[in-house]
Amino acid sequence: MSELIRTGQPALLFDLDGTLVDSVYQHVLAWREALEHEGIGLSVWRIHRRIGMSGGLFVRALDRELGIQITAGQAERLQKLHAEGVRRRLAQIRPLPGARELLGRLTEIGVPWAIATSGRAETALEITRLLELPAGTVVITRDEVPFAKPNPDLFLAAAARLERDPRESFVVGDSVWDMLAARRASALGVGLLSGGYGREELTAAGTYRVYDDPADLLGHLDELGIRS
Amino acid sequence: MSELIRTGQPALLFDLDGTLVDSVYQHVLAWREALEHEGIGLSVWRIHRRIGMSGGLFVRALDRELGIQITAGQAERLQKLHAEGVRRRLAQIRPLPGARELLGRLTEIGVPWAIATSGRAETALEITRLLELPAGTVVITRDEVPFAKPNPDLFLAAAARLERDPRESFVVGDSVWDMLAARRASALGVGLLSGGYGREELTAAGTYRVYDDPADLLGHLDELGIRS
Repeated sequence: MSELIRTGQPALLFDLDGTLVDSVYQHVLAWREALEHEGIGLSVWRIHRRIGMSGGLFVRALDRELGIQITAGQAERLQKLHAEGVRRRLAQIRPLPGARELLGRLTEIGVPWAIATSGRAETALEITRLLELPAGTVVITRDEVPFAKPNPDLFLAAAARLERDPRESFVVGDSVWDMLAARRASALGVGLLSGGYGREELTAAGTYRVYDDPADLLGHLDELGIRS
Repeated sequence: MSELIRTGQPALLFDLDGTLVDSVYQHVLAWREALEHEGIGLSVWRIHRRIGMSGGLFVRALDRELGIQITAGQAERLQKLHAEGVRRRLAQIRPLPGARELLGRLTEIGVPWAIATSGRAETALEITRLLELPAGTVVITRDEVPFAKPNPDLFLAAAARLERDPRESFVVGDSVWDMLAARRASALGVGLLSGGYGREELTAAGTYRVYDDPADLLGHLDELGIRS
């Protein structure tokens, strides 16, 4: 007889910016400011579509798309200026509707969950404060893995810390990079529109299901087969 | 014999924010600030999806989607705060790549063009300065028509000022509201991704053709049947 299959309580692995916290547009404008400081003109929508991916890959994409050679020193300055720009905008950043309630509900019904972000600890931990996370929450940042999204490392590390198989986990994110990383982690991606991507962009990246924001996901946990 | 058909030189009716000028994200955050000042919490992506539509309709959508009753006095304060917020961000706003070159090229080859924006003159005229428009450019603002987008009034007024039939015109815009207004004006909508909407969102609104930004459109004028 085969091993008993239990699919009733998958783990949820959350992205941070645009998924739990309404911070994408502040990140975008902080990047814009940093790039302009280095003499690089890049349209804001193009930056928006790169948010959530590894900063290193973002810089390589600049190389390719703008034909701009970014030196290692400049890449480091850009990351520093961006982090400063986000810190200057922290007072404008709010949790997304339903984020705290969703995490609270998952804890209450015994669904394991974690946060996994391409951001560095210094910025990400400031942002997670808005969520008033319970002690012991697993938060994996860029500093803890070799590669950020769209590589699956962040989500794999989060699943490992929860002692869960990524194949029994949902990755919840707002960006195409989250959805691509989810597929590489053999997890199913749940897309949220709250980061400003269009529904079809997320669907085209292989998303299993799309919701507006954490509040909408909280109202539809049954569709993911998550039971109280 | 039927009248000779001439389709060689259609007019182009341009939206402003997100279409010629990289100003959408600044508008979004200015609205966010104004709403918060009035005690209204609204996620940034939801504001983004309303940019370009009439301010009055935006306020009605708040009523519906948030169940918030906005008084006439509050609506007026919101518009004033938003305009102030945009003015404070003017120094961050840049023309989109290829915008000036595209308009210059159209003038050079004798294609009539105009700008039609849901914005009020006080803000819009400040923003158009970045484009260094030639004297005599037709710019239609919210103040000149009964209804802004998605009503077709702005584009109809622009076509009338150019003495062109809207059916022989392309409407170039970045938002779903531009595309819907284009259809009501019996014009074909050309969508640009530079305002941050996804390609499929524009396509679903009935867009005839989608390009990245003004530079990309300039490189593909032949696809619209526009000849030198």
